[in-house]
Amino acid sequence: MPTVYDVTAWSVPRNPSATPYNDIGLIINSIIADVKSQQTSQSSKPGAVIYIPPGDYSLKTRVNVDVSFLTIRGSGHGFTSSSIRYNAGNTSSWHEIYPGGSRVRVENTDGNAEAFRVYRTGDPRLSSVVFQNFCLDGVSFGSNENSYVNGKTGIRFDSANDACRIEGMGMVYLERGLVVKDTDALSVSGNFLAECGSCIELTGSGQASKVTDNLIGAGYVGFSIFAEGHMGLLVSANNVFPWGKSSVHFKNCTRSSITSNRFHAFYPGMVNFEGNRYRRFAESARCSAPGLNPSTVYTVASSDRDARKQKIFGSGTRCVLGLTVSRVPAGHCRTFRQDKTRGGAPSCYSLGPLLLPPESVSITLDI
Amino acid sequence: MPTVYDVTAWSVPRNPSATPYNDIGLIINSIIADVKSQQTSQSSKPGAVIYIPPGDYSLKTRVNVDVSFLTIRGSGHGFTSSSIRYNAGNTSSWHEIYPGGSRVRVENTDGNAEAFRVYRTGDPRLSSVVFQNFCLDGVSFGSNENSYVNGKTGIRFDSANDACRIEGMGMVYLERGLVVKDTDALSVSGNFLAECGSCIELTGSGQASKVTDNLIGAGYVGFSIFAEGHMGLLVSANNVFPWGKSSVHFKNCTRSSITSNRFHAFYPGMVNFEGNRYRRFAESARCSAPGLNPSTVYTVASSDRDARKQKIFGSGTRCVLGLTVSRVPAGHCRTFRQDKTRGGAPSCYSLGPLLLPPESVSITLDI
Amino acid sequence: MPTVYDVTAWSVPRNPSATPYNDIGLIINSIIADVKSQQTSQSSKPGAVIYIPPGDYSLKTRVNVDVSFLTIRGSGHGFTSSSIRYNAGNTSSWHEIYPGGSRVRVENTDGNAEAFRVYRTGDPRLSSVVFQNFCLDGVSFGSNENSYVNGKTGIRFDSANDACRIEGMGMVYLERGLVVKDTDALSVSGNFLAECGSCIELTGSGQASKVTDNLIGAGYVGFSIFAEGHMGLLVSANNVFPWGKSSVHFKNCTRSSITSNRFHAFYPGMVNFEGNRYRRFAESARCSAPGLNPSTVYTVASSDRDARKQKIFGSGTRCVLGLTVSRVPAGHCRTFRQDKTRGGAPSCYSLGPLLLPPESVSITLDI
Repeated sequence: MPTVYDVTAWSVPRNPSATPYNDIGLIINSIIADVKSQQTSQSSKPGAVIYIPPGDYSLKTRVNVDVSFLTIRGSGHGFTSSSIRYNAGNTSSWHEIYPGGSRVRVENTDGNAEAFRVYRTGDPRLSSVVFQNFCLDGVSFGSNENSYVNGKTGIRFDSANDACRIEGMGMVYLERGLVVKDTDALSVSGNFLAECGSCIELTGSGQASKVTDNLIGAGYVGFSIFAEGHMGLLVSANNVFPWGKSSVHFKNCTRSSITSNRFHAFYPGMVNFEGNRYRRFAESARCSAPGLNPSTVYTVASSDRDARKQKIFGSGTRCVLGLTVSRVPAGHCRTFRQDKTRGGAPSCYSLGPLLLPPESVSITLDI
Repeated sequence: MPTVYDVTAWSVPRNPSATPYNDIGLIINSIIADVKSQQTSQSSKPGAVIYIPPGDYSLKTRVNVDVSFLTIRGSGHGFTSSSIRYNAGNTSSWHEIYPGGSRVRVENTDGNAEAFRVYRTGDPRLSSVVFQNFCLDGVSFGSNENSYVNGKTGIRFDSANDACRIEGMGMVYLERGLVVKDTDALSVSGNFLAECGSCIELTGSGQASKVTDNLIGAGYVGFSIFAEGHMGLLVSANNVFPWGKSSVHFKNCTRSSITSNRFHAFYPGMVNFEGNRYRRFAESARCSAPGLNPSTVYTVASSDRDARKQKIFGSGTRCVLGLTVSRVPAGHCRTFRQDKTRGGAPSCYSLGPLLLPPESVSITLDI
Repeated sequence: MPTVYDVTAWSVPRNPSATPYNDIGLIINSIIADVKSQQTSQSSKPGAVIYIPPGDYSLKTRVNVDVSFLTIRGSGHGFTSSSIRYNAGNTSSWHEIYPGGSRVRVENTDGNAEAFRVYRTGDPRLSSVVFQNFCLDGVSFGSNENSYVNGKTGIRFDSANDACRIEGMGMVYLERGLVVKDTDALSVSGNFLAECGSCIELTGSGQASKVTDNLIGAGYVGFSIFAEGHMGLLVSANNVFPWGKSSVHFKNCTRSSITSNRFHAFYPGMVNFEGNRYRRFAESARCSAPGLNPSTVYTVASSDRDARKQKIFGSGTRCVLGLTVSRVPAGHCRTFRQDKTRGGAPSCYSLGPLLLPPESVSITLDI
C-alpha cells in the first residue's frame, strides 16, 4: 500500500491533462481519493504523506482534506516580501519577483475562497492533519496591491479537529492565512505568515493549543493572532511584526497565556482582550509601539485621535505579569487598579484602557 | 555505502518472512546491524537514517540502538485520542478507531518492556541519536482501558548519552512514554506525548537539557514531566494538559527553569520540587487548577482532603518569579516568606505548602 | 525541471573525478549552477532542495549561495563532543572519535575561511535560504585543540537577506559558527552549536529576527550569541552552556528581548549590553555563574580580579524584569536605580555594573 506520494509523479485517473503545475488541487484531491480507496479498514487508516517538491504550482481547485493523519509537505516556505516588490517601482532588473520554495499559487477558479479546506462530518474529529514547509501565495491584492483584500484564504479547518499541526509554512498575500475552527491541541509552530490580511484566526472554540516560535505580521486591516473562545491557549516565543491592527486579540478566551513574545506595532491596541471573561493574562511580552510612522496611506480606519483611545488591554483583564509596554507615559497608567491580597506580598492588578500619545515613553508594569 | 534506509524496502538476511508489518523491531535491528557492518572505521561512523513511511507496523522485538548518529524518522506522529475512543461506547460508525501516521504498535513478545532501548557500554557516550515524527502506540490498557497500566515503554535511554533529540514524536497508551537516563544536552521538542501513564521521565542525572514546545498530558497515575538530578534543565513553552498527578516534578534538580509554559491540572501539586536542593525556580508559568471535576472514577489515590495538603511548591524552593496560580485563596499563601535584600528593591521569596480548597480564587505571586 | 538534488547522485560536468566525499563544495556549487541554468524566468525561480545523506564529506571549495529559496538539508546534526575527545587521552578503544550524521568537514583549500557564503548583489535581497539538519565540523583546532582558533567559519551570510532559516544544524570546532550580516526576519532555531570559538554572530544590522530553542555553547574566547545593531530581536528558550565569554552580547541593539532562556557561565559578564541605546531588556532568564571552576588553563584573558568587574549588565539598560542572577551578593546591587513612575505601581529600573565575588549568593532582581 503506497503511503508516500509526490505531486509531480501522480496522474489523475481519466484526466491525463491534469498536472500539478496547472492545478495542484486536482492532483492532491485525486491522491486523497486514492488514500481512501486503499485504506478501507476502520482499524488501520494510517494516512499518507503528500510531497510537493520545490516548484511553481497553481491551485485552481480547492483541496478537501477529509482523512486523518494526512501530511502535506513541501521543501521550503519560500517567503519573500511581495509588499516590498509591489511598492518598489521598476523591478525589471530584479533577480526574482515572486515567492518560491514549494510554492502554491492560490488561484481558485472553482468558486471557493480556500486553497485547502479540512472538513469531515461524523466521528471522530479529524486528527493529526499536518501542513509542513510549503508556500501558499495569494500572488496579488489586485488593483491596489496594498489593500490586503483579495478574498483568498490559505487553509481553513472547518470542522472540529484534534492534534493538527501547521509547521514551517509560508503564507503571503492572502486575505486570510490560516483559519482554524473548534480546535483541540493544535500546534502552529515555526511558520512565516506575513503580508496577509489576517494571519492566524482560531475561531469558534478551542483548548490546549499553542502558537509558538513563529514569525508573523498581518496587514494593517487584520489580525496577526486572533483567538476566540479558547481555553488554555499558549502564545509564546513569536516575533510579531507591525502592520497588524493588533498583535494578539483574544475574544472570550480563558486561562490562556501570552508570554515571551516580541511584539512590534504601529497602532495602539497591540494586545486586546475582548469579552467578559477573566483569568487571562499577558506576561513577559515585549511590546513596542515605537512611534515609527505607519504609512500615511495605509492607516487603519481609526488611526486618528480616537484610535489612540483603543485599549491595549480590555477591561476584566487580570494577572498581567512582567509586561513591558514601551512609550506609554506613566501618567496614563492611572487607571490601574491594584488588588492587594492579604499578607502584602502577593498582589493582582487589573488594567483599564490606556491612552497612547505619540511621544509616550517606556514604562514597566511590574505586576 | 548506503546510509538511507526504508523499513518497507529492507529484507532481513536469512529471515525472508520478516516484514515491518509483522515485526518492525526485527527490521530495524537488522538495519542497525548493516550500519555497523558497513561503518567499521573508528574515524568515520556517520550513522544513518531509517525511514518509516506512514503505515501500521507491529513491533514484537525490542530495537537495540547502540550506534551514535542514528536517526529513526517517520512521517506523522499520528496522535488521536484513544481515551475518548475507549470511553465512547459504540464506535462502529467511526471513520477510524486507532492512531495513525507512521504508527508503531508496541506489542513486544520478547519479554522486554521497551519498544526502543538506547544503550551502549564503553566510550564515548552515545551521541545524537534521534527519534523523529513517528507514533508509538501501546494500543490498549487491557481490561481497564482507563488504568494507564500495561507495562509498555516507548523509548528508554539506558546508558549515558549526549546531544540526543526526540522531536515531533507521538506517544499514546503506553505506561511510560519516554525514559531517559543520565542525559547531557538532550532536546525534547515539538512532540505530542499524551494518554500515557507517564510521559517524560529524565532519570538518574542530567545537565543542560531542554523540554520545549511540546503538547504533553499524562494519565492520572503518573508524571507529565519528571526530572531527577538535573542541573540546568529548561522546561519552556510546553502546553501540559490535565490528568497527570503533576505537571512538572523536579527531584533534586538544581539551577533549572520552568518558564513560559501553560499548565492545566485537576489535582493539587501541579509543580513539585522534591529534595533538599535549592536555586530551582518556576517562572512565568500559567497554572490552572480550575476546579473542573476530575473523573470521580479515576482520581489519584490521595485526592481526598489529604491530597489538598500536597505541596504545590516544596520547601527550599527559591526565586519563584511571576508565577500565577489560579484558584488559590490569598489567605492560604500566608506561609510565604520574604527575604528582602538590602536596598529594598531586590527580594527573594520562599514558598511553603499551599492549601487548595475547591473554591479558591486566582492570586498572583509577584515575586 | 528537477528541483530535488542528492549530493551523492550528482556528477559535475567536465569534472568526473569530483565526488561529495573529496569535495562537497564543488558538488553543491555545480548543483546551484544547474538550478540557475534551469530557472531563468524572473517570474518563476522556486529554488531547490539539496540533500546531504548521512556520510562523511570533505569541503575544500567554498559554496557560494546566490539564489533565493535554496534549502540545503541533511539527516542529522551529528554533534558529539570533540573537546572531550581531544582531552581524553588515549581514545584508541573508543567506538568513534568524530562527529557524524550528515557531516561536512570544513577543510577549505581554496583560500577562503567559510564553508558556505550566502551573497548576492542587486535586488531583491536573498530570501528564504535554508540550512537544515547537517553537521559543519572544523575537525581540529590544530596544535592546541583547546585554542578555539583555526580560522574556519561555518556559514557566512555576507549580503542583506530576508526570511532565512538555520534549523537543526550542528556546528563544532569552528572558530566561527554562524555569521549573519544585515538580516531581516531570520530564524535560528533548534540547532546544536557548541565548541566553536563563537557560535552565533549577527553583525551589521538586523530586525525582527529570532534565536529560539537552541543548544549553544561557545569556547571561552568568544560569543555564544552576539547581535549588533538589531531591532526587535527575540532570544528565547535557548539553553546556553558555559565556556563562552558571555551568554548573550548585544551591541547597539534596541527593543529586543532576552527571555525564558537558561544561561550557565563560568565568568562574569554573562549578559552584556554594549553601546548607548536603551529600551533593551533581559527577562525571565535563568543565569547561573555557579562558581564551578573554569579550567585554570583555558581562562579568558581578563579572568583575574579585573574580569570580575566586567558588567553583567551595561549602563543604560532598562526594564530588566524578573531576572535571576545567581551568586551575586545583594550588597553589590547598590548601583540599582529605581525610577518610580507616578501612581506607585509601575516602576522601572536601571542596572549599573555589578561586581561578582566568587562567594556571592543568589539574589532575585524582581523588577
